[in-house]
Amino acid sequence: MTQELGITTDKQKDPNGWYTEVVKKADLADYAPVKGCMVIKPWGMSLWESIKSEFDEKIKETGVRNAYFPLFIPESYLEKEEDIVEGFDPEVAWVTHGGNEELEERLAVRPTSESIIAPFMSDWIRSHRDLPMRLNQWANVVRWEATDTRPFLRTREFLWQEGHTAHETEEGADEETMLRLEQYEEVIENLLAIPSILGYKPEHDKFPGAKYTTTIETLMPDGKSIQSGTSHQLGQHFADAFDITYMDENEDEQVCYTTSWGLSTRTIGALIMAHGDNDGLRLPPRIAPKQVVIVPIYQEENKEEVLEYAEGLEEELGDNFRVELDDDDSKSPGFKFNHWELKGVPVRLEVGPNEMEDETVTSVRRDNGEKQMGIKRSEISDKLEDLMDDIQESMYDELEEYLHDNIREAESKNEILGTIGKNRGYVKCRWCGNEECEAEVKDQVSAEIVVLPFQEDSVPSGIRSEEEELGGECAVCGEEAVTWAYFAKNY
Amino acid sequence: MTQELGITTDKQKDPNGWYTEVVKKADLADYAPVKGCMVIKPWGMSLWESIKSEFDEKIKETGVRNAYFPLFIPESYLEKEEDIVEGFDPEVAWVTHGGNEELEERLAVRPTSESIIAPFMSDWIRSHRDLPMRLNQWANVVRWEATDTRPFLRTREFLWQEGHTAHETEEGADEETMLRLEQYEEVIENLLAIPSILGYKPEHDKFPGAKYTTTIETLMPDGKSIQSGTSHQLGQHFADAFDITYMDENEDEQVCYTTSWGLSTRTIGALIMAHGDNDGLRLPPRIAPKQVVIVPIYQEENKEEVLEYAEGLEEELGDNFRVELDDDDSKSPGFKFNHWELKGVPVRLEVGPNEMEDETVTSVRRDNGEKQMGIKRSEISDKLEDLMDDIQESMYDELEEYLHDNIREAESKNEILGTIGKNRGYVKCRWCGNEECEAEVKDQVSAEIVVLPFQEDSVPSGIRSEEEELGGECAVCGEEAVTWAYFAKNY
Repeated sequence: MTQELGITTDKQKDPNGWYTEVVKKADLADYAPVKGCMVIKPWGMSLWESIKSEFDEKIKETGVRNAYFPLFIPESYLEKEEDIVEGFDPEVAWVTHGGNEELEERLAVRPTSESIIAPFMSDWIRSHRDLPMRLNQWANVVRWEATDTRPFLRTREFLWQEGHTAHETEEGADEETMLRLEQYEEVIENLLAIPSILGYKPEHDKFPGAKYTTTIETLMPDGKSIQSGTSHQLGQHFADAFDITYMDENEDEQVCYTTSWGLSTRTIGALIMAHGDNDGLRLPPRIAPKQVVIVPIYQEENKEEVLEYAEGLEEELGDNFRVELDDDDSKSPGFKFNHWELKGVPVRLEVGPNEMEDETVTSVRRDNGEKQMGIKRSEISDKLEDLMDDIQESMYDELEEYLHDNIREAESKNEILGTIGKNRGYVKCRWCGNEECEAEVKDQVSAEIVVLPFQEDSVPSGIRSEEEELGGECAVCGEEAVTWAYFAKNY
Repeated sequence: MTQELGITTDKQKDPNGWYTEVVKKADLADYAPVKGCMVIKPWGMSLWESIKSEFDEKIKETGVRNAYFPLFIPESYLEKEEDIVEGFDPEVAWVTHGGNEELEERLAVRPTSESIIAPFMSDWIRSHRDLPMRLNQWANVVRWEATDTRPFLRTREFLWQEGHTAHETEEGADEETMLRLEQYEEVIENLLAIPSILGYKPEHDKFPGAKYTTTIETLMPDGKSIQSGTSHQLGQHFADAFDITYMDENEDEQVCYTTSWGLSTRTIGALIMAHGDNDGLRLPPRIAPKQVVIVPIYQEENKEEVLEYAEGLEEELGDNFRVELDDDDSKSPGFKFNHWELKGVPVRLEVGPNEMEDETVTSVRRDNGEKQMGIKRSEISDKLEDLMDDIQESMYDELEEYLHDNIREAESKNEILGTIGKNRGYVKCRWCGNEECEAEVKDQVSAEIVVLPFQEDSVPSGIRSEEEELGGECAVCGEEAVTWAYFAKNY
């Protein structure tokens, strides 16, 4: 029974098989009848709810208000902005019938909402006093991806937030774009305990119509990079197309600058991948739906006392932690150990007759298996507090070391190709900004430039940027470099 | 300017026109390009967020876990349960194309999710230990209504929660159905301050395939009844159709009993209708996005001191209330009074040079316009606490009186017709349970039976039920009555 429930695929040898097994067995998601769609099960959903409430609080504190825009976008609206059409056309699900009637105009199930939100912004913004306007929605979106769908990481329907803002000045839009990226970083690093690289996407890989796109990239254990959040400075492109203008203080009409930014259920895929091991999921305490599971260990003759001891513990800890007491009589302690390890609960507390007699508790960490016996019952709450911080930090540190070890510099095209061929992770090099130089690499090893790290002088202070000075030539063509670039295979 | 912004339609004379104007001018919603769809603006959205967080907490405390099921339901899934097909077929929006490809099977945009959730329940439930299984999702749904769409009250796309549960016994399903109805009652009555009538829907008006459907009905000022929430005891009907079974303690296979229950953004329509007046929205304090607005009143020479006084007030009250300081220099105090009245904020605090000098505050209630001067600055927090309770209570009481005054008893068909013809509200009568008796009334006055109030002996104790004893004959046909029935025009 135990074996059947446990993970049977090795994460190193078969990361894809391992991922699928963990998603299913840890009760995170299930496959829907429509290919590429998923059912998010309660354990997975509570991870999303936690990300949502954390990020929602951050954006509300910084002037964003939630709204809800329609699921259906008339085809003619999508077509108003030709970059959007070209960017998303092959991925749109179309509604053609309502009840028994054929519709006069096809309706797109939103792949993203710029083209439905922009006309309303145009209508709602009258004067400079209405600016900045900052809107956000938590919604489902649909992209009819043809290939390689996987729960959370790439699904045809997914949940996300999409922020849409309008500003008087380009600086306002720049600051907004960077602020949201920083807030993504806080969620990914502090809540999910995943270190990341911040920067721009290359020109040819930015959002359709954007002035620039930023990304937060994280390195997965299989050596691929994943985009966990993205923000777009849209310049006046959308404002021009949708007539988003305002009257300035002199009563002159001006065109707004807009931004958009999104974070999706994909982050849960990154979380699973980044922290899981061959026993299943490992959850950082801050996001874990249950932080502590109490497993009572008893014989028939002392069952009642042990359970009472465990219940007292549950009650006390319940004030400060998300606690589960697993008192299911039909399962053995060993079964429960495996079950909760599979689910990724950060700390297990074992209480048996010995603990009861000594007025102690035994704790076991999920992240490294460390067992501590004889923790005084009276000190458990404080100890757990420390333990949670410690686990959160060491899970982050572990990945930071991995990230650090897997960024390799290369100074020529051959070195790039050789390094990518032999290693997982990022290859960092100087780049001239020319797409052809990227293509030369991409064609041979299916790795591409996933992020151009910020330079200190090109972003607001406080945002993490590349420390190493650039000065030098493009590793591929030898022309003058304009930026550092990180090549990687990616999701 | 003030007049243009204010409400120009009289609520009594033209409730529909009034409603539309309030929805637009109080920034609650806007019309989407697709007919019958709406944009929920931030002020409206925060009402939904408040309902959501209140109800979400209640259901989580009573064993429900959130999940997320796919937006798209294959046509063959819908067809597995023929009552569902017949009940929803004319209202389904169909996706026929993904990208440039025609799909092999049409996909329904979910009108409700029984038929997609049931197969998963069937898969996930193995033993009696998995029961009860209680799932809920917060989601958008689409019903291609042909007629009379209005923001919140009836839209083709709306937001809701849908709960779906499975139980070992019929009693378990009964209790679940009643528990959720009671929780709806708590939300509608305590949070939204709207009194309500609880009961069953008539047999011919229940959810397709349900054993019975309960409803929470509230009386709108135009005299129509609106269903604000509903729960369905589905018996074994869906469990049979979708094979939701479990192994009992003797390892015998048994069929589950299931329920479903939903509350939607329609409740916001009820809230607007129930409490609004000719100055706009009126919000009960518990749900108001802003409970207090502070309007500083100053001349150029004392501007700084007054603003400082107002800011101090804002800071202090911010700990206990949702406060807005309206310090917009471009608008007059009079303009602001009207603006915040339109938006429904329960209390306005005015602070000018006099208040500053006397260290006092002036308060004005939105619900009844009552003004109180000379409230001591040092006592304002306590006074406001009391004021909020008072407003919440008196808004409820006002509607309760209205409801009470508009329930009229009738003892014959002619009396029913006459009473409905002359009055708004409910006509209460004894009923034999025969649909034909309802039809005789319905055909003549377009009023129908909206609720059969619970009898004390047919529901768990604690649920509100009809006090008057039944004993007597059906008001229409004279046969023996089996229940009280409430006729009304409805939404």
